Amino acid sequence: MSAVDRAARAASDAFATYGWLNGRKKGELLRAIASRLEVTGDAIIAIANQETSLGIPRLKSELARTCNQLRMFAGLVEEGSWVDARIDRGKVDVRSMLRPLGPVAVFGASNFPLAFSVPGGDTASALAAGCPVIVKAHPAHPETSKLTARAISEVVPQGVFALIEGYEAGTELVKHPLVKAVAFTGSRRGGRALMDIAAARREPIPVFAEMGSINPVFILPRALRERGAEIATGLHASVTLGVGQFCTNPGLVIARQANTFIEELATKMAATPCAPMLTSSIAEAYKTGVARFGSIVDRRAFVDGGAALFTTSAATFLDHEELMEEVFGPSTLVVEFDDREQLLEVARRLEGQLTATVHAAEGEIDDYRDLIQILETKVGRIVVNGYPTGVEVAPAMVHGGPYPATSDGRSTSVGTRAIERFTRPIAWQNAPDAALPDELKESNPLGIVRMMVPGLLLAVSSYS
Amino acid sequence: MSAVDRAARAASDAFATYGWLNGRKKGELLRAIASRLEVTGDAIIAIANQETSLGIPRLKSELARTCNQLRMFAGLVEEGSWVDARIDRGKVDVRSMLRPLGPVAVFGASNFPLAFSVPGGDTASALAAGCPVIVKAHPAHPETSKLTARAISEVVPQGVFALIEGYEAGTELVKHPLVKAVAFTGSRRGGRALMDIAAARREPIPVFAEMGSINPVFILPRALRERGAEIATGLHASVTLGVGQFCTNPGLVIARQANTFIEELATKMAATPCAPMLTSSIAEAYKTGVARFGSIVDRRAFVDGGAALFTTSAATFLDHEELMEEVFGPSTLVVEFDDREQLLEVARRLEGQLTATVHAAEGEIDDYRDLIQILETKVGRIVVNGYPTGVEVAPAMVHGGPYPATSDGRSTSVGTRAIERFTRPIAWQNAPDAALPDELKESNPLGIVRMMVPGLLLAVSSYS
Repeated sequence: MSAVDRAARAASDAFATYGWLNGRKKGELLRAIASRLEVTGDAIIAIANQETSLGIPRLKSELARTCNQLRMFAGLVEEGSWVDARIDRGKVDVRSMLRPLGPVAVFGASNFPLAFSVPGGDTASALAAGCPVIVKAHPAHPETSKLTARAISEVVPQGVFALIEGYEAGTELVKHPLVKAVAFTGSRRGGRALMDIAAARREPIPVFAEMGSINPVFILPRALRERGAEIATGLHASVTLGVGQFCTNPGLVIARQANTFIEELATKMAATPCAPMLTSSIAEAYKTGVARFGSIVDRRAFVDGGAALFTTSAATFLDHEELMEEVFGPSTLVVEFDDREQLLEVARRLEGQLTATVHAAEGEIDDYRDLIQILETKVGRIVVNGYPTGVEVAPAMVHGGPYPATSDGRSTSVGTRAIERFTRPIAWQNAPDAALPDELKESNPLGIVRMMVPGLLLAVSSYS
Repeated sequence: MSAVDRAARAASDAFATYGWLNGRKKGELLRAIASRLEVTGDAIIAIANQETSLGIPRLKSELARTCNQLRMFAGLVEEGSWVDARIDRGKVDVRSMLRPLGPVAVFGASNFPLAFSVPGGDTASALAAGCPVIVKAHPAHPETSKLTARAISEVVPQGVFALIEGYEAGTELVKHPLVKAVAFTGSRRGGRALMDIAAARREPIPVFAEMGSINPVFILPRALRERGAEIATGLHASVTLGVGQFCTNPGLVIARQANTFIEELATKMAATPCAPMLTSSIAEAYKTGVARFGSIVDRRAFVDGGAALFTTSAATFLDHEELMEEVFGPSTLVVEFDDREQLLEVARRLEGQLTATVHAAEGEIDDYRDLIQILETKVGRIVVNGYPTGVEVAPAMVHGGPYPATSDGRSTSVGTRAIERFTRPIAWQNAPDAALPDELKESNPLGIVRMMVPGLLLAVSSYS
């Protein structure tokens, strides 16, 4: 029996019990994981810094975020209304709620060794849903993975959590019949490979792959005139934040008559010191990407291995699909458009994105409702007069978007809605309390908010 | 330009407007479709009866259900809380809600020429979500499809609805880049073919295929002793309802020491008169299925072309995977188990199902919590002391289940939750009212229930 097979069987066995824990019990476990991570925090941060070059302050902040995420999901499952319990005592007694899918495979990201890795949002939301988790460690930070995995394993029941390593083990995991869903953060190539494996299974399973995007920033004419310098400053900070290694890094800027703006941005970009990237292969890929862009469009600033600024016309951009590909790192491309129709055409031609940003002067957005409508079909989040980096971990957040930004634009990997990915609705008809989860029992022993029917909505007549 | 291409472009163009209609407007249209169907009801029922042999009473009832479904979704979108609007006025203003995906392809079913066909639940829920719909007509009832399509087209704006015909047009539709989701009711082979096409697209899209199942019925020992005759009567009615042509038709019964029960059921089945099936190819497939089962297990009752009853031991059942395949028609297989462990093993070996039913005497289910826990991982709905046929169209209903019952066990095709299939969450950050859908505007002009944050849930700190 392989390590993957062992982990999958243990997870499936554990699911019979873990999947039926109520929200209070799961909340306790999630809080215990957070405390455990904090207790071993210094060691985790030290090893993560060795493995990722991200620096102590950023890693401290990331650990805090990771623990906060765990506690956010603890709060969510303790409160309990997220299960969408519905109780219909009509002609027939029908009750339903969201229930966990079963064992979930999580593929950690390179760029967040904690918050999107072993103890990250995917793990936290799957555990909160009631799903055992098997993480495939990212090879960029193996020791950090092991140390954080230990913290989780020490807290949760046997079988509920496991860590595996290696490319082939990852593939075996996605193919394993006992695994019921996959979460992934990484490259489009990697994500699509997992999607294809999962779709070809005898029993296809959902894959939630967050594959990044170029996060276009549209600067409307009046906004550019009124706030061009300020936007250049904000954009520079967003493009170069964390050496440009964020999924929400803005890699495309669309503006008109932007000479002065480009000069300002170029000066800032050229003055940005080089910083080490997460891995040597990421640094190598960044150089290749910058060289590829340089062969098609104008390079306005590029410190070797550091921040890069490119410019081109909308016509050239629309002619070169490869300019829509993400260059993972502190690089951005400013596309100058001639007229409104060209602006809209650039928006129409975009692939799916995590975010789109619009800078607009007071009242200016009223004249660009058509742009907003196009962008809405392309993204998971529309930012107005801000920057896409900085994803609030909160109930209203959406960190998702149409393919290829993610594998399934109907999901988010950040915020409380992330838990829904690992659930499905199940109905009980005419069932006594003994057959029901606590959330649906007649006396509402957990005291959660439930939808009672008939209420606002009336059942219609039944057939078949 | 092909008919499919024309329809897809028109749908995509119409989406820019239709996708932004608020719930009140969409509610009006859905109610107008229902009224229109009622006005032409006699003609629709007459033609449907010619094409399907289902009979006037059943078709009248199905038309009523179809109109009720449309009005249920009208009520849902008018009330408005289904969009799950969330407003966070914290550090950053973030607002999100469920928004429509875009044009949806609907593949009508043979067994419900109205309620799961052109004007059926998939069309109603997609239109309610804000998605234009292109229906691929089922070849078993082409004229019914055309007549009902006309009723819809007369009511909705240009491009919002279209009907296409033909196998190849259906394939082209699923491959079309402007189509963003697929709904299907039919065979496993047909559903899986669409799943594979959709997964292989450059931009994979979700497929919601309801592919039927064998809907196992477990009769616990005490229930059999106390109510065996009553259960035989109920089961016979459920198996033979509508000539067994329902997705929730119970094709498998698991019981112990069931001799008397089997005798009673056999007598009833043998006395069931033959009735015409939906199409000659369905009748042919039914005969083949019955012959296949007859070559493996004991045939206890079979009027040629009519109801069929088979019996076998759990050991034989567990040895023959092909006995888990659906025989579409009025046929069922009683599997006799020896002991509790064998009962659980049969449950464990089941594929994904729309439903599972348990008959239990007073208090008996308390001793079978393990059975319920296994069944919960296999189905979308658990019925206690009832029969799986008869699906309430209501907010708490789940008509779905793990593959191969459906392509995506996280969805339901019946009940108000069906609308969620055609939506995705989108967030707006720091956006003025002019950029927001009505549902998220500051003054709440539609007066819908919205989640305000911070409320029960607290946002945690952000990073990246």
